[in-house]
Amino acid sequence: MNKIKVFAPASIANMGCGFDIIGMALDEVGDVLEISIEDGDGLTIENETNVPLPADPEENVVTPVIRKFMEMTGKKAKVGIRILKKIYPGSGIGSSAASCAAAAFGINELFDHILTEEELVVCAMEGENLASGGYHADNAAPAVMGGIVLIRGYEPLDLIKLPVPGNLYCAVIHPHMIVSTKEARSILPQQVPLHNAIRQWGNVGGLVAGLYSSDISLIGRSMQDYVAEPYRKQFIPGFDTLRKNILQAGAQAMNISGSGPSVFAVANHFEPARKAENLMKRHFEAMGIEYETFVVKVSNKGTRVIY
Amino acid sequence: MNKIKVFAPASIANMGCGFDIIGMALDEVGDVLEISIEDGDGLTIENETNVPLPADPEENVVTPVIRKFMEMTGKKAKVGIRILKKIYPGSGIGSSAASCAAAAFGINELFDHILTEEELVVCAMEGENLASGGYHADNAAPAVMGGIVLIRGYEPLDLIKLPVPGNLYCAVIHPHMIVSTKEARSILPQQVPLHNAIRQWGNVGGLVAGLYSSDISLIGRSMQDYVAEPYRKQFIPGFDTLRKNILQAGAQAMNISGSGPSVFAVANHFEPARKAENLMKRHFEAMGIEYETFVVKVSNKGTRVIY
Repeated sequence: MNKIKVFAPASIANMGCGFDIIGMALDEVGDVLEISIEDGDGLTIENETNVPLPADPEENVVTPVIRKFMEMTGKKAKVGIRILKKIYPGSGIGSSAASCAAAAFGINELFDHILTEEELVVCAMEGENLASGGYHADNAAPAVMGGIVLIRGYEPLDLIKLPVPGNLYCAVIHPHMIVSTKEARSILPQQVPLHNAIRQWGNVGGLVAGLYSSDISLIGRSMQDYVAEPYRKQFIPGFDTLRKNILQAGAQAMNISGSGPSVFAVANHFEPARKAENLMKRHFEAMGIEYETFVVKVSNKGTRVIY
Repeated sequence: MNKIKVFAPASIANMGCGFDIIGMALDEVGDVLEISIEDGDGLTIENETNVPLPADPEENVVTPVIRKFMEMTGKKAKVGIRILKKIYPGSGIGSSAASCAAAAFGINELFDHILTEEELVVCAMEGENLASGGYHADNAAPAVMGGIVLIRGYEPLDLIKLPVPGNLYCAVIHPHMIVSTKEARSILPQQVPLHNAIRQWGNVGGLVAGLYSSDISLIGRSMQDYVAEPYRKQFIPGFDTLRKNILQAGAQAMNISGSGPSVFAVANHFEPARKAENLMKRHFEAMGIEYETFVVKVSNKGTRVIY
């Protein structure tokens, strides 16, 4: 039996303006899976965390990932997966993508890197489809590849790794509230007023330019979302007030992470990121909502083997 | 009397995907204006070209530009403008923007650079508003500033000069057909399907990333427009066939310039750009449509004094 332990990072989809096309890996926070193969066929999944996951393997997001890997490579094995650490599902920081990325990366390690990084994202997207009913890469791609990834297009998949400024800090809060990705998608209008669409792609251009030029102020003022946030912020009580306070405290932007309920702020130093974290804590504490928070320096590290 | 001669370049708005938010100066091709000031008040405009322009100064695009300059600076002068060289109006390569940029830049020179470059774009946009009924900067900004400019947002105006790869070549054809900017705008639906909007901002991200990383292939595959081109290409007979031929000949992309009827192709060498130009010529010749064409290396030069 061949066995490996893999870490895959949490991730923030959209970064404000980049709805469905930009995602950022968070590192330090993520899933840990142990993956083994031996001769034979089949898949067993053991959940060794306290996080509730579906008992039926057909409902676990790693199953379609492993299946896709076998289909793409023509390989066969008896695969065992032990989930050792798990981001809480429905948090909006790429919980399913982290498991999918870890499974895809791990099985590929055990088969001597038979697939490319981009192909691993394709495998991981199968799990995302099971989780949310759509082939999205805005969590899966950064989870696999690390850093900040632009999905220029889906047909064909065109992944562009964007530069990460050396001083980009991120504060995240996961308030313990349930927002389903499917519901958060279903409330979005299927038509965007041209005026707002123009503002959105102006901001996407600004965000990408800011990342290349390490201009955190440009990054911050580009992270305005005219498409999803106006509808999704209703799920996060006091969203506008929280943002006002966080920007006043020196952060460059605050947005919903993916479809929420997690919220994140970016800053050009550790200190304003820490202040943002404290304001987030106070905000949800005052409403009696439990949470966890963390502050990370955004890095380029993606899914990797750990020992 | 103080007198100056100014050149302002033609420009290509949108660059495919960047509807209303990206523009590229063409250099080598453009308008030449002589501008003079003396004590007094008023504005005279003389058209010394063969290009027909409105006789009434109130209908000439430079009038609101000069007026805006005086309003912003609190200055007063008797201004004389002689138009010495003029891009044909309605060509879709920023004819009005070139005149506006030249007027704004020239008057500012004569008043010792009292306004910033960004403020000159604001002045030039007044002329654009007269020409097309909207405050657009996607020709005015590159005409003033040169190179490739991202208009991240309009409220407030946020202009980002993007890097120009050293080997970006552009072939342009101006077929002699009339397409009014107002009409070309009015046929666009005021709602964009979310699916297409996502593809559009994925491409804007890719275009900006390609410019920063000098990746002409990425630039080319990002220059796909799902918003304006599907409606505007009807004005350009045989558009799809022409593009197919031009891409086969080695160019990276072909799109409508602004609202048309000019069409342009980008390439990573002079040779495929020249081939694209020849295909453009043949295409319109076969239909008995007159034209002019040019091939330029995209540069960073904007409006400037000439002697």
